[in-house]
Amino acid sequence: MIMKLTPDNSPEEEADEPIGLPHGNGGRLMRELIEEIFTRELRNPELDTMLDAATLSYPHGTVVMSTDCFTVQPVEFPGGDIGSLAVHGTVNDLAVAGAEPRHLSLGVIIEEGFGRRRLARIVDSLAAAARAIPVRVVTGDTKVVPRGEGGGIYLITTGIGQRASDRALDPRRILPGDTIVVSGPVGDHAVAVMLARGQFGLQGELLSDAASVLPLTRAALAFPGLRFMRDPTRGGLATVMHDIVRACGHGVRLRTDDIPVRPAVRTVCDLLGYDPLYLACEGRVVAIVESTQAEALCAAWHALPEGAGAAIIGTINADEDGVTLETALGGERIIEELEDDPLPRIC
Amino acid sequence: MIMKLTPDNSPEEEADEPIGLPHGNGGRLMRELIEEIFTRELRNPELDTMLDAATLSYPHGTVVMSTDCFTVQPVEFPGGDIGSLAVHGTVNDLAVAGAEPRHLSLGVIIEEGFGRRRLARIVDSLAAAARAIPVRVVTGDTKVVPRGEGGGIYLITTGIGQRASDRALDPRRILPGDTIVVSGPVGDHAVAVMLARGQFGLQGELLSDAASVLPLTRAALAFPGLRFMRDPTRGGLATVMHDIVRACGHGVRLRTDDIPVRPAVRTVCDLLGYDPLYLACEGRVVAIVESTQAEALCAAWHALPEGAGAAIIGTINADEDGVTLETALGGERIIEELEDDPLPRIC
Repeated sequence: MIMKLTPDNSPEEEADEPIGLPHGNGGRLMRELIEEIFTRELRNPELDTMLDAATLSYPHGTVVMSTDCFTVQPVEFPGGDIGSLAVHGTVNDLAVAGAEPRHLSLGVIIEEGFGRRRLARIVDSLAAAARAIPVRVVTGDTKVVPRGEGGGIYLITTGIGQRASDRALDPRRILPGDTIVVSGPVGDHAVAVMLARGQFGLQGELLSDAASVLPLTRAALAFPGLRFMRDPTRGGLATVMHDIVRACGHGVRLRTDDIPVRPAVRTVCDLLGYDPLYLACEGRVVAIVESTQAEALCAAWHALPEGAGAAIIGTINADEDGVTLETALGGERIIEELEDDPLPRIC
Repeated sequence: MIMKLTPDNSPEEEADEPIGLPHGNGGRLMRELIEEIFTRELRNPELDTMLDAATLSYPHGTVVMSTDCFTVQPVEFPGGDIGSLAVHGTVNDLAVAGAEPRHLSLGVIIEEGFGRRRLARIVDSLAAAARAIPVRVVTGDTKVVPRGEGGGIYLITTGIGQRASDRALDPRRILPGDTIVVSGPVGDHAVAVMLARGQFGLQGELLSDAASVLPLTRAALAFPGLRFMRDPTRGGLATVMHDIVRACGHGVRLRTDDIPVRPAVRTVCDLLGYDPLYLACEGRVVAIVESTQAEALCAAWHALPEGAGAAIIGTINADEDGVTLETALGGERIIEELEDDPLPRIC
């Protein structure tokens, strides 16, 4: 699949109507911008732009809350854009906590000069992603910062959802012998965004995996042996594994050959010296599950389009510290915590 | 009162340890930054930095949600800083909706090179403001963007709270003859920030009014004739009045002589050509109340330190459109919606 992208500095973008500082001043131009671009697309019974706060009805007791800032550059990339990502990223944080997302707030920080049509495309994409979940954007805030003091556009979403109170997942519940399952290939999002930047002279057709993981987490919650889930975003699979080691006090052992990595991701990593285990996904889940249920969980994920590439990749090991990778030739190497090598604005 | 401010480019700040891009990469440096600066100060039973989402218990049904992005420049100003402002701003949006704030999420977008000590001061101030309310910061996200793609630091808070379901306030409930009460002088925040920037060669000792308005809103909720409250932030009192006119379909009539404005604010406005009615407050409430209860509401506010400057400033008028100001000499002028004249990064 070949994506048509509009680079941020293309002639089309330069002809776009620029957002100005008065669009953030609280007055008429701001109100019209909100009404024309945000309210129209995001319309729902609980969104009332006359009010600064939304009133929501939560019949049950347990509320789950999560927030994420989205700074991805370029704002439109193969397989997604910052608008849909801002929905999926926060929905996914709620989903891996075992919750059903219900409401989102939306913060928008626009740099003066950002194109109005581009903003409208992003909001359209955000609204479509929210409708597809479904989750409702019920309150928001827009600021415009002077040229040179922003990064085009930053979005911040906060989600609240509900969880049946008996499904509290916690990495401290993980036990030695538990099995690690990943829902699909790792690193697609980071490499797709890197390629979209064109900064290494590389080109490719890889799509980001950015998507809602709700179908995956709903399927996983059917397994009573499910201990914990996490979406491996910034810092990748390796960072989730280190978080788990710190939380449960046991070691993690992964098998290189079993970790799904697309050939395009592996090629880019080989060329640039990246390790795919540290690269961000935006539509994958890592689950830790009681070992006797791992095959069944993997099969349940395979039955979903989102989980076609699911694989059992390792185990929890009481007898060692840290994260160990068993390599193809029978060797071992320690996976350290991510240090430098940042990919800024990857999500 | 004279405030000691540290300008953003002072030698002290230039010697501060800079935040780098790896502090936002998800790995070790980011984890340590979160633990040392955020978790330590914000510690509470519901904040678990092992998890991406917080689980909260809401025994009753009605949840109120609000969000705000904070971009104020300079980040430390007389009477406050971006940290306490990020708590008060969102708490105030919940408060004027008639709610009791309970939980906050915190998004942080740091520009590479921002000082680590300055960040710690801001987080300390934020944590102290949250403890004083009290409201708990239960989840967060930190991003670091490359130098030149941010504005020092931007904070985004989302608040959820609870409201007794019979206290739904709505500007559409406002009736002709209702009275408009403001809790104190207007424009202090905007002028204090302007003076702190030093951009007009002006100096002064004015403090921002930035504060929690919860004591004011709790007092107002005791009045059954209370129709609606709003905090006049960006766009000022004039913008709140225009919002009310649009929502209730009646006109607003204000009396110049009755609107409290500090002499320092009036002087700056006269010098620079600003109208204090358009300037941001960050610790004031405007209430619309059934006319027979206006004097009692004003007296209740006078009894609070936050409401010492409260005043009855106008009425809702069925027989005209828009916002009309009765001037000192018996004349009238129409207050238009704010157009240009932005004060970027005022809040």
